[in-house]
Amino acid sequence: MNQPRELNATLVNELKSLLGDRATVARGIRDQHGKDESYFPYAAPDAVVFPQTTEEVRDIVNICRRHQVPMIPYGVGTSLEGHILAVNGGVCLDLSQMNQVLAVHEADLDAVVQAGVTRKQLNEHIRHTGLFFPIDPGADATIGGMTATRASGTNAVRYGTMRENVISLTVVLADGRIIKTARRAKKSAAGYDLTRLFVGSEGTLGVITEITVKLYAVQEAMSAAVCAFDSVEGCTRTVIQTIQAGIPIARCEIVDATAIDCINKYSKTGYRVAPTLFFEFHGTRAGVVEQAEAVQEIAKENGGMDFQWATKAEDRTKLWEARHNAYFACLQLRPGSRGISTDVCVPISRLAECVSETMKDVADYLCPVPLLGHVGDGNFHLVFLVDPNEPKELELAKSFNKRLVQRALAMEGTCTGEHGIGLGKQGWLREELGEAVDVMRDIKRLFDPDNLMNPGKVVPL
Amino acid sequence: MNQPRELNATLVNELKSLLGDRATVARGIRDQHGKDESYFPYAAPDAVVFPQTTEEVRDIVNICRRHQVPMIPYGVGTSLEGHILAVNGGVCLDLSQMNQVLAVHEADLDAVVQAGVTRKQLNEHIRHTGLFFPIDPGADATIGGMTATRASGTNAVRYGTMRENVISLTVVLADGRIIKTARRAKKSAAGYDLTRLFVGSEGTLGVITEITVKLYAVQEAMSAAVCAFDSVEGCTRTVIQTIQAGIPIARCEIVDATAIDCINKYSKTGYRVAPTLFFEFHGTRAGVVEQAEAVQEIAKENGGMDFQWATKAEDRTKLWEARHNAYFACLQLRPGSRGISTDVCVPISRLAECVSETMKDVADYLCPVPLLGHVGDGNFHLVFLVDPNEPKELELAKSFNKRLVQRALAMEGTCTGEHGIGLGKQGWLREELGEAVDVMRDIKRLFDPDNLMNPGKVVPL
Repeated sequence: MNQPRELNATLVNELKSLLGDRATVARGIRDQHGKDESYFPYAAPDAVVFPQTTEEVRDIVNICRRHQVPMIPYGVGTSLEGHILAVNGGVCLDLSQMNQVLAVHEADLDAVVQAGVTRKQLNEHIRHTGLFFPIDPGADATIGGMTATRASGTNAVRYGTMRENVISLTVVLADGRIIKTARRAKKSAAGYDLTRLFVGSEGTLGVITEITVKLYAVQEAMSAAVCAFDSVEGCTRTVIQTIQAGIPIARCEIVDATAIDCINKYSKTGYRVAPTLFFEFHGTRAGVVEQAEAVQEIAKENGGMDFQWATKAEDRTKLWEARHNAYFACLQLRPGSRGISTDVCVPISRLAECVSETMKDVADYLCPVPLLGHVGDGNFHLVFLVDPNEPKELELAKSFNKRLVQRALAMEGTCTGEHGIGLGKQGWLREELGEAVDVMRDIKRLFDPDNLMNPGKVVPL
Repeated sequence: MNQPRELNATLVNELKSLLGDRATVARGIRDQHGKDESYFPYAAPDAVVFPQTTEEVRDIVNICRRHQVPMIPYGVGTSLEGHILAVNGGVCLDLSQMNQVLAVHEADLDAVVQAGVTRKQLNEHIRHTGLFFPIDPGADATIGGMTATRASGTNAVRYGTMRENVISLTVVLADGRIIKTARRAKKSAAGYDLTRLFVGSEGTLGVITEITVKLYAVQEAMSAAVCAFDSVEGCTRTVIQTIQAGIPIARCEIVDATAIDCINKYSKTGYRVAPTLFFEFHGTRAGVVEQAEAVQEIAKENGGMDFQWATKAEDRTKLWEARHNAYFACLQLRPGSRGISTDVCVPISRLAECVSETMKDVADYLCPVPLLGHVGDGNFHLVFLVDPNEPKELELAKSFNKRLVQRALAMEGTCTGEHGIGLGKQGWLREELGEAVDVMRDIKRLFDPDNLMNPGKVVPL
């Protein structure tokens, strides 16, 4: 862990005179901002600031740049790859007070939010409109954080990831310029796609302060279902055939027997302890019935044992809350442990092979390894539980992850479907994309010549 | 028009020794490659080369860079904004011999193609698979050209544009490096989104040589319909209400009375001469019926007069061919004229207002101005017909377009929904995106320090 440093007193004074109480070097608050949900050592920033506007962010960036101090944007700290750890110290920009929904354009199916608005907050805010925002990582992350990490979740198979759902961004650049990356029109061919360049840039190219996102009409009919199988292979085959048939499922999630057991205990549910698929269907009444019947047929042919339906809103909510909490449920399998979540994503034709080889491999790990995943996208997670005081366990888990990533790359897959590079995947990035990583590093240098924007992440200079 | 120049003899010799007959300075071929579908003066390159592989493109790029000669990638020359005009001379890279479909992964719903494959060629190639590639600009453009201009078309309202449908690219950079921007997995959070940076870069950052695109399952039921209205306002209101209701229409196109008349004459169709919407519905049998009934109801409330159905494949093909040829049909309104197509795109809530103010404005133009558009996206085109020998007509058309773009920008719209910046929209780009354009220029300088990659386009240095 990095040692707390004395920040230049002038810098602190400048931040305090800009923000008053909303700039602090208090130990407790700094420590709080030095941890995320990853397995990396804590690394606290030297100061934490709480801006409320894009202009305040600009002023903070200008102060930090003048003093050549790193800046780390922070949402709610639910990164799984160490994105917000202040590995070189510096000032943490906690954006939680930038939590205003600035506009909801019901007729245009979009909303403009400040970066600190969380996904649940936005959905609560627009509940009366008959619209919803679909992207749902497990945690109630901020939309800024989700944009910065190109997050996705259970709805991506139908609605895409943050890549497809951000229309425009307001960004403060390292030199203090404020830019807007696009207009609010749904499509545009106007110049280079700066929006997409910042989506997934993990705070390393600038600070995202406002986001215009797409919304969707809540469909006439939404129906969820849970189906247990006699094998993980039965699950993956069902998913593959469903996708290939072009059935527009809204969600399609795998949870293996180990993870189902964790969920049952954590969320007080009573699902059969077996490899299980969670489905959701959106559409017209008749369309949903047709989709569901087609999937049920496919499932039956692959050893699907029973469909439990959830059509009432509260039952659906309960089901998806259980799924969203699955990661936290899995951590309880070994109290006191920390989780290392893998995140590969492969072309769907290779999914069954990738999952089954991997499950054979992890049978040797020192405790059960739950499997969870957005299998409709070819993306799945294993949760390795490690004792944080046993470096050997960490090394063991890493060696399993190494084999998994190599397996996925050999199948034309990616080392990260949705968690991002952060600290954890830098080594794999080059193996995955070769010389393209040098181009990324050149872009980093262009946007951040002094290496102050979340330094040490994605492509460290 | 630029004058033909003598290219350095060594350069020509190097190209010929690399490519043999596939490198030429013949006048006729150079002239052919100096025109597109835009209204800009012809500008022929000094040489034309026909590479067949990514490695040949790399060798050409290395030769041209050594001689500091511009390079212009060329597909089939259907740009509407002057993208392929050799305004600084140089070597045209005609990619039409890179026309191999390299792989079709049916199970993964993707295909890998060389840049010179056209959209119709790909769809022909995969016809037996039950899959299709949806992006369809009017012309039978190459997939490389469509990627470079971030093209869309009639299916974008349901399937997105090239932005959403490119998975990965192989690109030859200005320094001769060959990079692959992403793996074949459906989603990834691995580093900066280089794929999207090249989509829409118009040949100014590198030469795109291979593209991995998404494919979609042909749906169980596909049904098209044509509905005439008593006013353009009735059309736009119908579209807006359809989108806002969340009905997943696959296509939704407006054609006004002037354009319908042109289409009838050009395609020998017999549509009622009135403002008209062309629809298509994709889904399950029951789902399509439900969608169509809902839209028919909305249309009726807005003055829709009759639904003509086309459910048989050949009738649908005929209908969409008529629509795709509409631009060329409109050119016949004034034989010998050239078309200037506008391309604004606005948030859908402003569409009706934008269209009706514009139609009032263009009533003063010197001949009827047909209206066409992908109204489900908020994107529409007016075709101004000008006599190429009358500079005053060009100026007049430009002044109408200027008012239209200003109107769209004031409505948070964009100057180009799908045609790109090219030569024609550079002035508007800054008005639309302000200082973000400086960032684009910095990116251009980073990728192309010698200003040799399609110089003078998007953000001229």
